[in-house]
Amino acid sequence: MNNKTLKLKHLLKEGLDAVLITSVSNIVYLIGYFGFSYFEREAFLVITNTENYLITDGRYSEAVADIPGFKLIETSLENTIDKVFENLSRKIKKIGIEENDLSVLEYRKLRKYFRTANLSDLQNLRVIKNSSEVKSIEKACKLGDETFDFILNKIKLGVTEKQIALEIEFFIKRAGADISFPPIVAFSKNSSIPHHKTSGQRLKINSPVLLDFGIKVENYCSDMTRTVFFGKADDKFKKIYNTILDAQKLTIEQLNNLTIAEKQIKASYIDDIARKHIINQGFPSIPHSLGHGIGIEVHEPPRLSSKSKDILKEGMVFSIEPGIYISGYGGVRIEDLVVLEKKGACLLTHSPKHLIEI
Amino acid sequence: MNNKTLKLKHLLKEGLDAVLITSVSNIVYLIGYFGFSYFEREAFLVITNTENYLITDGRYSEAVADIPGFKLIETSLENTIDKVFENLSRKIKKIGIEENDLSVLEYRKLRKYFRTANLSDLQNLRVIKNSSEVKSIEKACKLGDETFDFILNKIKLGVTEKQIALEIEFFIKRAGADISFPPIVAFSKNSSIPHHKTSGQRLKINSPVLLDFGIKVENYCSDMTRTVFFGKADDKFKKIYNTILDAQKLTIEQLNNLTIAEKQIKASYIDDIARKHIINQGFPSIPHSLGHGIGIEVHEPPRLSSKSKDILKEGMVFSIEPGIYISGYGGVRIEDLVVLEKKGACLLTHSPKHLIEI
Repeated sequence: MNNKTLKLKHLLKEGLDAVLITSVSNIVYLIGYFGFSYFEREAFLVITNTENYLITDGRYSEAVADIPGFKLIETSLENTIDKVFENLSRKIKKIGIEENDLSVLEYRKLRKYFRTANLSDLQNLRVIKNSSEVKSIEKACKLGDETFDFILNKIKLGVTEKQIALEIEFFIKRAGADISFPPIVAFSKNSSIPHHKTSGQRLKINSPVLLDFGIKVENYCSDMTRTVFFGKADDKFKKIYNTILDAQKLTIEQLNNLTIAEKQIKASYIDDIARKHIINQGFPSIPHSLGHGIGIEVHEPPRLSSKSKDILKEGMVFSIEPGIYISGYGGVRIEDLVVLEKKGACLLTHSPKHLIEI
Repeated sequence: MNNKTLKLKHLLKEGLDAVLITSVSNIVYLIGYFGFSYFEREAFLVITNTENYLITDGRYSEAVADIPGFKLIETSLENTIDKVFENLSRKIKKIGIEENDLSVLEYRKLRKYFRTANLSDLQNLRVIKNSSEVKSIEKACKLGDETFDFILNKIKLGVTEKQIALEIEFFIKRAGADISFPPIVAFSKNSSIPHHKTSGQRLKINSPVLLDFGIKVENYCSDMTRTVFFGKADDKFKKIYNTILDAQKLTIEQLNNLTIAEKQIKASYIDDIARKHIINQGFPSIPHSLGHGIGIEVHEPPRLSSKSKDILKEGMVFSIEPGIYISGYGGVRIEDLVVLEKKGACLLTHSPKHLIEI
């Protein structure tokens, strides 16, 4: 039995006979196999005090037959998931569910066989990363740095946002990794739209170039943003750029100054530091959160926003990504990942952050 | 108001004040905008007798502001989704939901404001394609044919499955389209695993090469499979190949012989024709369905399987993909898309189907 499954066992103490895991991200986390679709329900885990079951169909049974600590139950035309649940219901009366993942339809079926309890805690199952998880994220970040280095040479007059995005994607895939989300590439005014949809726009002289991309290595994601300038940046752009750079530095310094062992760091407090600095410099507030946790999914707890109730703890990995967006002009965002350690925030991305003019 | 929204209005006759659409595929279908994430809830549609509302946040409001027939409601830190639902609940008492899409957590929140009804019909909202949808699928299929033509030249001694899969993906993306799923490339024995995970295996002489890939154009998917032979095919392989080819031909002939206007064609009956032919030739039955509907998603209704209750109707687009898989030896699958027309099944994929030896 691994430590990850143990995290679930304590949930069983509160009157539950089992926990049902349905979200693919939690399944990947618990069994280490990542072949299941995120779009169709292909697997279930049932964790009890004595046994852990992995339920899937014949397409996957060979691949998952030998996962340590899990007994395979194969569904088929005869041994339907309903039959499997019926059999399990002889021993299991009350089962905890992932209420944010299970559909209403599935819930209604499940209720035929079990009493259920909503386990909202399961959204936080993966929030503290162990050293092996951090290493995987670090590898993804390292390839991110290499990708940034590579792509700088492709930024040329007349190239389109889409061409740059494809170059990023192909570089990552040629390296044997995957993208963790479709790269965002935004030229000139488009950089003022935080979630710009990469377009066919061509690069002109004197434009900001915002590059936001992520990589998946060993099932773990990275995420980084850099904004460079194609041409010669004017004073306005430089002021925006330096404000963002300082806002990010201030939050990281604050994370380093607070000793985690001694006090709890509110995520909203860190968000506030960056946000206030930007407003104090006369710019509009960040129209998104300062950051988000990352791991098997690109967006995971904790959330660094003004309304967040999350407390930052040792072992959490999250982004710090302040941004200024001036509609009709352009924007700047700088995003790095950090892992929170006893001594403070350790940077996982190492690409240069001074203003690069190309 | 478009015809697609009208399909939903009849649902309102049965005591409902509104229909809530949450699945991204149905949202894409109804409003034609495809920027929302499939992984996080970013938009809702609420369809009433008098108004259609599109609910989303500030990241998307500019992009979706002018969708004909829809009023935009923008959520924000102040105007939360809970507040929006509360406001709507003044006029809407009972709301139909997509029970296979809405999570238990969302359902519990929704129930604070509305009575709900499960609308299982919504899974079939997109099952009949109009001519413009068929045209988009046809474009995707055409690019699929070009991709197949291109990839034949890349099949060389020592190349890996992953390299071929990347070449397929890059070709499609360079053409401005997207993949509809990660390409499946299976050499030699691997071709006996219907959902083989493309690996680093290198191509040796005298191997089957199974290529299963799909393309997304204008939000619509294609899906095709060809199995070629690298080297000189022996009699055993030829018999398997021809059995599959004949099985597919027989089902298409049957679809053409039946006049749709006159009689209903059971999907299970078509599945049976291919399955029986394969078994009669002394091979194992197909370990998957004969085919599946396709459109905005790669897998949609109808389902062509022995247990399917679906009836095939004019305007449906689906795959016909018989396969024979001999463990430890290899496999053959041939997959084409057809659209069902009054006169029969019209093929949308046109790549050659004779046994190609490279």
